[in-house]
Amino acid sequence: MTTLTNSRKVRIEWGDCDPAGIIFYPRYFEIFDAATAALFERALGLTKLQQMKRFAFAGYPLAKTRARFLKPTRFGDDVVVDSTIAFGRASFQVEHRLSLEGALCVECSETRVWVVRDPSTGGIKSQPVPEEVREKFGAS
Amino acid sequence: MTTLTNSRKVRIEWGDCDPAGIIFYPRYFEIFDAATAALFERALGLTKLQQMKRFAFAGYPLAKTRARFLKPTRFGDDVVVDSTIAFGRASFQVEHRLSLEGALCVECSETRVWVVRDPSTGGIKSQPVPEEVREKFGAS
Amino acid sequence: MTTLTNSRKVRIEWGDCDPAGIIFYPRYFEIFDAATAALFERALGLTKLQQMKRFAFAGYPLAKTRARFLKPTRFGDDVVVDSTIAFGRASFQVEHRLSLEGALCVECSETRVWVVRDPSTGGIKSQPVPEEVREKFGAS
Amino acid sequence: MTTLTNSRKVRIEWGDCDPAGIIFYPRYFEIFDAATAALFERALGLTKLQQMKRFAFAGYPLAKTRARFLKPTRFGDDVVVDSTIAFGRASFQVEHRLSLEGALCVECSETRVWVVRDPSTGGIKSQPVPEEVREKFGAS
Repeated sequence: MTTLTNSRKVRIEWGDCDPAGIIFYPRYFEIFDAATAALFERALGLTKLQQMKRFAFAGYPLAKTRARFLKPTRFGDDVVVDSTIAFGRASFQVEHRLSLEGALCVECSETRVWVVRDPSTGGIKSQPVPEEVREKFGAS
Repeated sequence: MTTLTNSRKVRIEWGDCDPAGIIFYPRYFEIFDAATAALFERALGLTKLQQMKRFAFAGYPLAKTRARFLKPTRFGDDVVVDSTIAFGRASFQVEHRLSLEGALCVECSETRVWVVRDPSTGGIKSQPVPEEVREKFGAS
Repeated sequence: MTTLTNSRKVRIEWGDCDPAGIIFYPRYFEIFDAATAALFERALGLTKLQQMKRFAFAGYPLAKTRARFLKPTRFGDDVVVDSTIAFGRASFQVEHRLSLEGALCVECSETRVWVVRDPSTGGIKSQPVPEEVREKFGAS
Repeated sequence: MTTLTNSRKVRIEWGDCDPAGIIFYPRYFEIFDAATAALFERALGLTKLQQMKRFAFAGYPLAKTRARFLKPTRFGDDVVVDSTIAFGRASFQVEHRLSLEGALCVECSETRVWVVRDPSTGGIKSQPVPEEVREKFGAS
C-alpha cells in the first residue's frame, strides 16, 4: 500500500565536511533524522514538539539503520532527500534517498520504534504507533 | 585469520543527547569513526595525520554501514567500544561493539575504502590498502 | 559605510537540542558559520568551493567570537538569522542576529581572518581580504 | 577566593576538522561544554544525570560566551583543557584554557545560569546556584 513521499532540499555546509573535503558521513544521519521529522510533520500537520504534546510520546529512536554511500557530496552542494515510510506492527521503516543533480549519492533505511516515557522506570518504552498517526500517512 | 582488537572508553556527553534524554544516534557514528581511527593508530603506531603523510592517502570513507541499537545510552555513561578489522581486496570491514557495564548497546559494521587524491579530477579515488598497512594489522 | 545584509531562515531540529529540550548552544555556532558562508555566497555569487578556487584561499577561520543568549529556541522553531559584515585591514567582522517571531534570541559577533595555504609549512597563513572581495560587498 | 581547577585531555578527531584540515570551531564549544560538566562532576562527585536528580535542576545553559582562537589544532592533536569557575549571585563564570604541548590555542569565558523546570510554563527558569553546590567548589 502506498504512503506519501516527502522531498526536501538540504545544503551541505563547510562544517559538515572533513579534511578530505567531502561530507563527514555522520552528518548524513543528522540529515536523515531531520528528514524523518519533516516527513512526520508533513503527514501530521504538526511540528515534532506539537506531535509529542498531542500523542504524548517521547520520540521515535532507531532500532536499526543501514546506508550505502555511492557518491560523495561537498560543501555548497544542494542535495535532495526523498523519504517514504512503511508501518509494521510495533515499528516502522523509513527509506531515504539522497541525490545531487539527479544522481543518487546515499540510500538509507531506518527501522524506528515509537516510544513513550515509562513513569515506573523514569526511562522510555516502546509502544505501537497510534492508529491516528498511521492513518495520516495513508497507511491504515 | 585473526587481526588485532582495539578497546576504548568513551564518555557520553550532555550535548550528545536529545530531548528524550538519550544519545542522538548520529553521535554513535562519530564515536565509531573515531574508533576506526584509533584502531589504525594502534596498529600503525601513527596518528591519522602521520598516516596520511606516510602513505600519501586522503582518508578511508565509508561505502556502507549498518548498525543495530539494542539499548539506549545516556549522558554520563562511560561506554566501551571494541573494534576489529577484516581486509578484502579493495575495501575493508570494521566491526564495532559498544557496551555499557558489559551489556551490548550498539553493534555496527562498516565497509570502507582507502582513497587517494586524484590529481586529474581534483577529487579522490579508491585504491587497494597498501600491503604494509595490512601487515601491521597482522593480516597479510 | 553600509554593506549588504543577508537573511536566512533556519529550522531548529530535534538533534540540535539537548536533554533540557532546548538547543545545545554549539549548534548556534554551526548556524552562524553557515550564515557567514551564505553572506559571502550572496555577495560574491559563488559557493564557498567556487570562491576558494577563484580566490585561491583556504577559508576564513575565526580569530574571536562572542555571543549573548537571550531566549532559548526549541526543535521545530523556524528562526531567522540576519548577518552583516565590516572589513578591517587584515580581518573582518560579521554580526549575526538570530530571532524567533521577531524576538531576538542570540546575538553573535565574529572576527575572522582570510587564510591561504602556506606551501613552506604545509599549514595556513593569514592574508588581507582581496580588494575584489571587499568591493563585492560594497565595502571598497 | 580560589576554587578548584579541572584539567582534562581531549583528542581532536578527524570528524572535528573541516576542509582546511583544522578544527571546525563549533567543536571547541562542544569540548568546553563537556569540560564544564567535568568540572562539576569533579567538584560534586556526581555525574550530571546524578546532579540533576540530586539538585532537581534542568541544566546550566549559557547566557554569554566569548572565545579567542590563537593557534589552530588538527586531528590527532591531544589538547589539554584547564577549567576554573567563579560564582556570582545568580550566575557563574567558567574560564577554559585549551593548549597543545604547553602553547595556548584557545581561551574561552562562559557565563552560565542554573535553571530548573518551570511547571507553570512547561519551560525552564533560572534560580540561584544552591549553597551546597557552591561549597563543594570551595566557594561559599
